[in-house]
Amino acid sequence: MSKIRRITIKPKKYRQVAGNSPGVIELDADALEPLITVFSYSESELISQEIKNSGELDAHLAKHQGLTHWVDIRGLGSMELFEYIGKRFNIHKLVLEDIAGTLQRPKLDEYDGYLFATSRMLYLNDNLEIENEQMSFILMPDILISFQENYQDCLHPVVTRLEGGKGNIRFAGSSYLMYTLMDVIIDNYFGLIYRLGDELDMIEELLYRKPDKSIMYKIQEIKRAMILIRRAAWPERDKINDMIRSDSPLITQDTKTFLKDIYDHCMQVVDLVESYKDVTTTLIDMNLSIISNRMNEIMKVLTIISSIFIPLTFIAGVYGMNFSYTDPETGKVLHHNMPELYAENGYLYTLLAMGLLAAIQVFYFYRKGWFK
Amino acid sequence: MSKIRRITIKPKKYRQVAGNSPGVIELDADALEPLITVFSYSESELISQEIKNSGELDAHLAKHQGLTHWVDIRGLGSMELFEYIGKRFNIHKLVLEDIAGTLQRPKLDEYDGYLFATSRMLYLNDNLEIENEQMSFILMPDILISFQENYQDCLHPVVTRLEGGKGNIRFAGSSYLMYTLMDVIIDNYFGLIYRLGDELDMIEELLYRKPDKSIMYKIQEIKRAMILIRRAAWPERDKINDMIRSDSPLITQDTKTFLKDIYDHCMQVVDLVESYKDVTTTLIDMNLSIISNRMNEIMKVLTIISSIFIPLTFIAGVYGMNFSYTDPETGKVLHHNMPELYAENGYLYTLLAMGLLAAIQVFYFYRKGWFK
Amino acid sequence: MSKIRRITIKPKKYRQVAGNSPGVIELDADALEPLITVFSYSESELISQEIKNSGELDAHLAKHQGLTHWVDIRGLGSMELFEYIGKRFNIHKLVLEDIAGTLQRPKLDEYDGYLFATSRMLYLNDNLEIENEQMSFILMPDILISFQENYQDCLHPVVTRLEGGKGNIRFAGSSYLMYTLMDVIIDNYFGLIYRLGDELDMIEELLYRKPDKSIMYKIQEIKRAMILIRRAAWPERDKINDMIRSDSPLITQDTKTFLKDIYDHCMQVVDLVESYKDVTTTLIDMNLSIISNRMNEIMKVLTIISSIFIPLTFIAGVYGMNFSYTDPETGKVLHHNMPELYAENGYLYTLLAMGLLAAIQVFYFYRKGWFK
Amino acid sequence: MSKIRRITIKPKKYRQVAGNSPGVIELDADALEPLITVFSYSESELISQEIKNSGELDAHLAKHQGLTHWVDIRGLGSMELFEYIGKRFNIHKLVLEDIAGTLQRPKLDEYDGYLFATSRMLYLNDNLEIENEQMSFILMPDILISFQENYQDCLHPVVTRLEGGKGNIRFAGSSYLMYTLMDVIIDNYFGLIYRLGDELDMIEELLYRKPDKSIMYKIQEIKRAMILIRRAAWPERDKINDMIRSDSPLITQDTKTFLKDIYDHCMQVVDLVESYKDVTTTLIDMNLSIISNRMNEIMKVLTIISSIFIPLTFIAGVYGMNFSYTDPETGKVLHHNMPELYAENGYLYTLLAMGLLAAIQVFYFYRKGWFK
Amino acid sequence: MSKIRRITIKPKKYRQVAGNSPGVIELDADALEPLITVFSYSESELISQEIKNSGELDAHLAKHQGLTHWVDIRGLGSMELFEYIGKRFNIHKLVLEDIAGTLQRPKLDEYDGYLFATSRMLYLNDNLEIENEQMSFILMPDILISFQENYQDCLHPVVTRLEGGKGNIRFAGSSYLMYTLMDVIIDNYFGLIYRLGDELDMIEELLYRKPDKSIMYKIQEIKRAMILIRRAAWPERDKINDMIRSDSPLITQDTKTFLKDIYDHCMQVVDLVESYKDVTTTLIDMNLSIISNRMNEIMKVLTIISSIFIPLTFIAGVYGMNFSYTDPETGKVLHHNMPELYAENGYLYTLLAMGLLAAIQVFYFYRKGWFK
Repeated sequence: MSKIRRITIKPKKYRQVAGNSPGVIELDADALEPLITVFSYSESELISQEIKNSGELDAHLAKHQGLTHWVDIRGLGSMELFEYIGKRFNIHKLVLEDIAGTLQRPKLDEYDGYLFATSRMLYLNDNLEIENEQMSFILMPDILISFQENYQDCLHPVVTRLEGGKGNIRFAGSSYLMYTLMDVIIDNYFGLIYRLGDELDMIEELLYRKPDKSIMYKIQEIKRAMILIRRAAWPERDKINDMIRSDSPLITQDTKTFLKDIYDHCMQVVDLVESYKDVTTTLIDMNLSIISNRMNEIMKVLTIISSIFIPLTFIAGVYGMNFSYTDPETGKVLHHNMPELYAENGYLYTLLAMGLLAAIQVFYFYRKGWFK
Repeated sequence: MSKIRRITIKPKKYRQVAGNSPGVIELDADALEPLITVFSYSESELISQEIKNSGELDAHLAKHQGLTHWVDIRGLGSMELFEYIGKRFNIHKLVLEDIAGTLQRPKLDEYDGYLFATSRMLYLNDNLEIENEQMSFILMPDILISFQENYQDCLHPVVTRLEGGKGNIRFAGSSYLMYTLMDVIIDNYFGLIYRLGDELDMIEELLYRKPDKSIMYKIQEIKRAMILIRRAAWPERDKINDMIRSDSPLITQDTKTFLKDIYDHCMQVVDLVESYKDVTTTLIDMNLSIISNRMNEIMKVLTIISSIFIPLTFIAGVYGMNFSYTDPETGKVLHHNMPELYAENGYLYTLLAMGLLAAIQVFYFYRKGWFK
Repeated sequence: MSKIRRITIKPKKYRQVAGNSPGVIELDADALEPLITVFSYSESELISQEIKNSGELDAHLAKHQGLTHWVDIRGLGSMELFEYIGKRFNIHKLVLEDIAGTLQRPKLDEYDGYLFATSRMLYLNDNLEIENEQMSFILMPDILISFQENYQDCLHPVVTRLEGGKGNIRFAGSSYLMYTLMDVIIDNYFGLIYRLGDELDMIEELLYRKPDKSIMYKIQEIKRAMILIRRAAWPERDKINDMIRSDSPLITQDTKTFLKDIYDHCMQVVDLVESYKDVTTTLIDMNLSIISNRMNEIMKVLTIISSIFIPLTFIAGVYGMNFSYTDPETGKVLHHNMPELYAENGYLYTLLAMGLLAAIQVFYFYRKGWFK
Repeated sequence: MSKIRRITIKPKKYRQVAGNSPGVIELDADALEPLITVFSYSESELISQEIKNSGELDAHLAKHQGLTHWVDIRGLGSMELFEYIGKRFNIHKLVLEDIAGTLQRPKLDEYDGYLFATSRMLYLNDNLEIENEQMSFILMPDILISFQENYQDCLHPVVTRLEGGKGNIRFAGSSYLMYTLMDVIIDNYFGLIYRLGDELDMIEELLYRKPDKSIMYKIQEIKRAMILIRRAAWPERDKINDMIRSDSPLITQDTKTFLKDIYDHCMQVVDLVESYKDVTTTLIDMNLSIISNRMNEIMKVLTIISSIFIPLTFIAGVYGMNFSYTDPETGKVLHHNMPELYAENGYLYTLLAMGLLAAIQVFYFYRKGWFK
Repeated sequence: MSKIRRITIKPKKYRQVAGNSPGVIELDADALEPLITVFSYSESELISQEIKNSGELDAHLAKHQGLTHWVDIRGLGSMELFEYIGKRFNIHKLVLEDIAGTLQRPKLDEYDGYLFATSRMLYLNDNLEIENEQMSFILMPDILISFQENYQDCLHPVVTRLEGGKGNIRFAGSSYLMYTLMDVIIDNYFGLIYRLGDELDMIEELLYRKPDKSIMYKIQEIKRAMILIRRAAWPERDKINDMIRSDSPLITQDTKTFLKDIYDHCMQVVDLVESYKDVTTTLIDMNLSIISNRMNEIMKVLTIISSIFIPLTFIAGVYGMNFSYTDPETGKVLHHNMPELYAENGYLYTLLAMGLLAAIQVFYFYRKGWFK
């Protein structure tokens, strides 16, 4: 009856992790064909270009040397691309396996000449399902390669900022670019939490007005979503901390100042998630209490009605008994056999007695506060 | 029916955080026009002045060099002011963004030449709503700038102390002034906790006397408020610790002694909040137990009444049956067809039997302790 | 009905903390006039003397130089005394404020020339209320000043030991004296816990025999008391640890050996409190389960009685119907209109059928185990 | 009725641990006769051979010096084998005792010349029981000995990889081989968790559609399995960390890179287990709420039916009373004795009144929302 | 009815701890007269001798110099013995007080020339009560003194091992002997946990088959026992760790290898206890769910019977009403007054209508799944 449009968690395929040979790239069965866009920029210029294959990418990077490059790869379905990247940039095969695996916890691994990081991008798709996508980054001196599973346009705010050229983004190097991408990811966590928080408020509202059976399912779905966000945000926080403490020259001191800022944001995400988890717990308790209260209401109605009318019915039953006033054979009056029935006004007095009994009970229940 | 005036949490607008470009100041849509007051003081004098715009502020600071200045800004709705402060005091744009953002966790950031700190000011407004306001501080050698979101006069105790000139406040420098402001903030936490604690006591009282359906909502609101305070106090504690451990020359050794004191207070806030959270949990359990007990009461009434009268009604029903004593056609006595009805005193004996049955049941229920 | 004499927590006035100016002593409105006793002792002698005012104290200390002094102050209601102590022993005003404040967490502060420590003294007063009193210590080379809020004689065991002169107490200096006072405080925690543990055992006993509505309140009061003890014991433990690790010459190496011993005791207090908290949780669960079980009992009685007699009453009702055997106008026999009523032994067979039906139901309920 | 094929935990025999003399090997009563397979390999060749006894093993190792050996022992029922290994490789008797004990937590012990590690292998056997088997490793420069309790072929993926010769496995030494075995173990945890996660989804589905009594047992079994996995994975994680931090030359730098990878996997296992434990808690709450809701449903039916018909039955009872209209002896009309019975249309009006009463109650219950 | 032989916790007398003067030995009121056995051994010989008093002990130790001695004291009721030990071996009085106190947490204290350690020995006595006894050790170069409260023969396995002379025990010195005693203590924890685990399994079995009211008490007793074991095992673990890290020459390097082994065992005890505590929580939830389910069952029976027969009884009641067909005075037919009663087959049709109504309801309840 109640129509909250319900946020659900998109089920994740997970089976392919188990049994892999380490260091061997295995593509997901449903991985998408990669869409590659390269943004090459300096303070003064910004070239954004769609790339078709690794050869074209190679050519583009060679041609625009001296610029900073962001290679944005959406879709992980090309083994050839992985092999090209592995060879061209000398990337460890464990890194490539992790990118293709898509079920990594957020982490930072430092390798010789580059850094590898993963994050979980959480966002609502058009069916109000929470997508849990892996985003991977390879950070090199002038190049940042980012990998997404879907074609979804989550990183659009960064593109806008690049195009606008406001702030540091155009001259602060590849580590700053990576920071802005991570910033967008964490902002997405906030958006999701606020969205879920609104749902919790609606549910609380509903509990007040009109609790129904489906509420537990809604609360539980939100709790699961909170658990999901926490599972992404906790290790993300550790990852950012690792980046701040890292002494790799790839992360500039200036970027670290900004990283401290999103570290605080990430802490806030975790704080909020914990608070909302506490809230869901209380909502579950409230729901139980409301159900029990309704039971009490129901029982009160039953008890009041039954307690009043059952004794009255008994009295009526008594005077409905057929004890004979006279012996059917002799016609003799059988003394004490229900003389009330033959008394003048017996009926009236009986009705009055019944009314009195009912009134006493009503008063008793009123005193117990059962009519409130 | 029961009229506890209920403390609620004022809903926070939160949406504007997500999607910001880092280091770009974005004013809240409903930010207030700033009210600026400057208190310039030394041991011997105190000048307090309302300031209209940044130019006047500039002039005032220039004129009263040598004094310690507290620039108290209430309302964050002027981009021009942020820009002036950024330029005049050489403040990092991330700092200005955080001041305008109003959703920061309490934290301390050390910058070259100044310290930046935020706190959460929690207080009850006139509608008994808990306001959750951000208070930001920029601490410079002789200047402390404080930023509040609203015009609310929370910091009045500090003004009074400045005017009174008692204690260290007039000669202990800007870091001591900042400490007194933080002290007021933490004192506010205490006030709020005690207020909520009183409500909890009232609720417990109510649970004893007259539990009703709304109690769960009240408990839950208090639990949420406790969660809110904890979310403010935990990072506040860390912030104070950071200040104590800081080797910045901006925080004098003397101030640190006092900071240790509010560190202890902050720990106490956290302790109290945890204790009260435990208490709310128990109250929820008590409420559930009370509801169940009331159900038992109701069921007992129903069961006693039903169990006594239903069998009696059955007996009355039996003697209300119309089995014929004589065959209607032949007039022959049909043996065994309800001779009781025609026995002398049959009615009396039946009533006595009914009374006995009822007495046995009453005794049985009494023995089971159902009348207590 | 059930008469457990109930331990309650004496409500603490708390309001005065908020809004104080730091470093300004504010006496509690209901603070008592100080009772001062000085115990001056060496290995060979013990002088104990009641002191009336600060002047007398001054004289006494001057006269008995060379001895170790324990200045035992009970009652904090004299501003003049605080000022004297502050000036005479050069005590920081934050310390004096903390002593007067009476709501400190246990802590140790090291100052130049003296140590300041607070503890929470918990004890049962004559109304079986748990008093939560602050005890403060100023430890100087040959003088220990202790402050209590009430005149209560909690520290009597130490006086007895001083008088007896057994053990180290008379020659081990002021830090050892302070240790013995702390030892008494922690022993008091134990006493209180064991007392509460006994109540828990009684409550469990009661749950077995005769659960009633008030049990939840009793359990909750004990849980609150446990929370109170834990809130005192956790920081006490930290305080003792700080004393052990302190490199202040005021705490002798020998005393530290003994402090390790009460550190272990304090850990044990915390362990016991946590265990008992677990036990209260289980008791709450048991109580809920017992209430539900009783509900089941009640429902069984209702269901058995109703299920047996309602169908029988129906049968009686059927044969109480007035369907006419003959047409009132024509006198014609209306076939099928209740010939049972005119059958010979119809009544008897009906009673037998009713008995059979009841027997079947009783058997059914017996098989379901409802009579156990 | 509902047929989820249920995963259970195979009960572990545990009694033999207690009372052992330390360092004395005691075989399990039901330990299997060892099956020994040796895989000796270098980059260019792979010899795999079934071994019958320790003499044959000795000969094999002597013959194939220069190769890397994996001695895979399945079944721990031969004291002679333990003694041979102890003597031949100079293994500490505590290590041999731990291998035979089969109830160790995962751990790493470094000894002179070799490393000893244990893991818990969890897998589903053919009866859908979770087997909890101990796997032990002795790592020496060119030899890895692995011990399993059962003949189960869990390590088959490693054998396949060895035979395929892909990746590092054939030339990266014994520590890399040990890593691949641990990788298989952790992959098994994932498989098990996903399997249990699927069951949880099915149970949730069932809760929606058709909750029944057995659900609690199913939830509890899954919770127990989660606890089991966590108990294996937490110390496994510590073990891997010990290996990464170890400075033993037995673990190559290259292997450590890979160990970091399974460290992350192990963290993920722990994360997932915690999340699923949270989910089971919610499912238990949901189940309770559903049961209560059903109770409400049942009570509503009872209350509606009873509340409507009991008052009506009372009215019928009233007009079934036998108050006499005339005195049986004098024939005089007894005024007020039930004149309604002799009024024209009295019956009709009574039925209408009954219908009206029923309609009012139906309306009342409808308004309370009891028909939804 | 159900006969699980129930394990209970033997209540501990605890009052005597509070109020002791530190360093003053106070014997328990019910302390037993000491039984002293000395085992003096070297690799080649083992002399075991009952000792009557401290003089005899002195003589024995003097006579058998060069051997390693284990002085096994059971019963702590002799002040003279404590004084002898204190003087003979130069033991600190705090140590002696702790030995006599019998309520210590497990701990290790290092003193000059000896180590002092306590453990909690938990075992089942013949009444299936869990005894919680203190075991204390004083470890000196060639002497180990162990103290037990009771005469119980818990340490018998060590005596057997000494007599057998297998393993290291006869030549590895006093620290190894102490290790073997601690090993026996921890093995006892395991035995107890497994015993309690078996009870939990029985309880779960019982919950399936035949839940009754006493189950909550049984679960709670086991939970309490688990809490007790945890309270012993956690500090025991810390103690073992302290011993491993200790640089005292009293603990040989070889013994430390073995201590690492029981450290792992102790961790396992803690793991198991936590797991079983989780299990008890689930059992409590299951029990609540089962009680609620039974309530549902009971309510269903009541509702089905009542809902079917109450309306039928009403119908019977209607046709039992005495509305008159003719005016008693005029004999005129009162139209509409219950003509059904005089219709041919009116009775039959009424019965059929009743049957139909009942069938509809049965069908309705069947559809709702209430008959399963």
